[in-house]
Amino acid sequence: MIVAGFEETCKQSRQLAEALGCPWREIEVHRFPDGESRVRVPPDVRGTVIVHRSLDRPNDKLVELVLAAETLRRQGCDRLILVAPYLCYMRQDIAFHPGEAVAQKVVGSLLARYFDALITVDPHLHRIDRLDQAVPLKQVLSLSSATLISRHLATDEKERLLLGPDQESRQWVEAIARKASLPCAVASKRRMGDREVGIALPREVGEFDAVVLVDDVASTGTTLAEAARLLVQAGITSIDVAVTHALFAGDAWNRLKQAGVGEIVSTDSISHPTNRMCLAPLLADAVRKYAF
Amino acid sequence: MIVAGFEETCKQSRQLAEALGCPWREIEVHRFPDGESRVRVPPDVRGTVIVHRSLDRPNDKLVELVLAAETLRRQGCDRLILVAPYLCYMRQDIAFHPGEAVAQKVVGSLLARYFDALITVDPHLHRIDRLDQAVPLKQVLSLSSATLISRHLATDEKERLLLGPDQESRQWVEAIARKASLPCAVASKRRMGDREVGIALPREVGEFDAVVLVDDVASTGTTLAEAARLLVQAGITSIDVAVTHALFAGDAWNRLKQAGVGEIVSTDSISHPTNRMCLAPLLADAVRKYAF
Repeated sequence: MIVAGFEETCKQSRQLAEALGCPWREIEVHRFPDGESRVRVPPDVRGTVIVHRSLDRPNDKLVELVLAAETLRRQGCDRLILVAPYLCYMRQDIAFHPGEAVAQKVVGSLLARYFDALITVDPHLHRIDRLDQAVPLKQVLSLSSATLISRHLATDEKERLLLGPDQESRQWVEAIARKASLPCAVASKRRMGDREVGIALPREVGEFDAVVLVDDVASTGTTLAEAARLLVQAGITSIDVAVTHALFAGDAWNRLKQAGVGEIVSTDSISHPTNRMCLAPLLADAVRKYAF
Repeated sequence: MIVAGFEETCKQSRQLAEALGCPWREIEVHRFPDGESRVRVPPDVRGTVIVHRSLDRPNDKLVELVLAAETLRRQGCDRLILVAPYLCYMRQDIAFHPGEAVAQKVVGSLLARYFDALITVDPHLHRIDRLDQAVPLKQVLSLSSATLISRHLATDEKERLLLGPDQESRQWVEAIARKASLPCAVASKRRMGDREVGIALPREVGEFDAVVLVDDVASTGTTLAEAARLLVQAGITSIDVAVTHALFAGDAWNRLKQAGVGEIVSTDSISHPTNRMCLAPLLADAVRKYAF
């Protein structure tokens, strides 16, 4: 068994291989000037391969993943386990207008055609309960980063309110707060476009000087920036952010800084300067369930 | 039956619908700031759908095509015909090094999973004879633009040599030359990297003042620019270019101009300012074979 990783998160996939005590090999990608990708897998690999790739900015990566998986398969790998710490297209889980692709299901089916098992962290599931409803495989594991985040936040001595951005985050935020022995609350949110949201803060905010905004993903940063702006208005003097997935599309990071956010921390599901929490031990435990 | 097209080549897919006498509808694509695509197909469509999309810069487009095809299928379209005037990944037809993905076959299989039939123009097939060896469908049609190009070139009154870039282009260039009643020859070519090639001109060049370089695809333009440079050195005063697929990656177009190329013409397989030849009648004839 080996762990095969891609260049952009080779540090993370190497750490996973180390935690599992198995060799690490690279899946090489060359992008041609015409936009096509050339993929090269380790040629001498058979048996079980753990393919590690986070699927942020997903379209190139999905095509390359299909190329890698089928090439590994053709050279005799009989078991492919996809470890995708960030899983793409999970937010498109319903057709908001007739004719819209339910990308969650289409991409889930695509991945299920090329892999035998999938392990991911905090996928954004709204309208389904279980990940295997999106990715129809017998072996799918949706891990929670709650313990990892709570451990990181618990090291701080300040009494801080953990604030989730919306009702949907309540369970997850409560789990983090409980483990970190910190108070928590959630805001209410209404989305009006890709980069526009309306937020109402909960009244608990008035009782604190310091707030940590916790969310599963910082994408455009719109929600977090708007929440931070309201917190500043409400007189909160210390506003930090903790997220699982540091997607930070476009200028999201700067927008948060400008909105008054202090420290931003994330897990290393997506490589980013804010990475402070390493997922490798959590992922390794999960891989052991499927691979041994 | 309808023709469904995407924004970037809506002119071409509309012309195809017109030639077929059937309605045209758009498949809408929205790209989110995080790199995901939202795809919306015409919601009230059933039966046979001709999906028109050229697959230059292919990775986003392939994912969007999968999203569109499965969404059409789920809403009851029982026959999906892909018209891809430019078909991607056809040049990666062999593993040059162990472990390299034979993308031609992997992408071919992927398309075959989502569509019932495929129609394309001048796919770049080196080591296989028939397109269905790459795209395993019963109905695959590989059209030639030779007649279209020859008709365009025959309108000129000058006596010009048609020059193919390499031995592999010989058959195709000869077909064009025969139909246009023009002389032809081919150069010999050795590729040394993405943007580096070595070319030797054939001696026939010495007998002409005017040359038209003909090729199936202008990608980085490296081959055509190098050929043009040698033709200038050889004293050729009029150098034009005719290609099927105006891919023109990066600064390819400028490089050709700087190398001394005069007029550049292409079919409209990929939208480009050099488009002079309309593929719609050719594609419509092919669609009629499969769709009626």
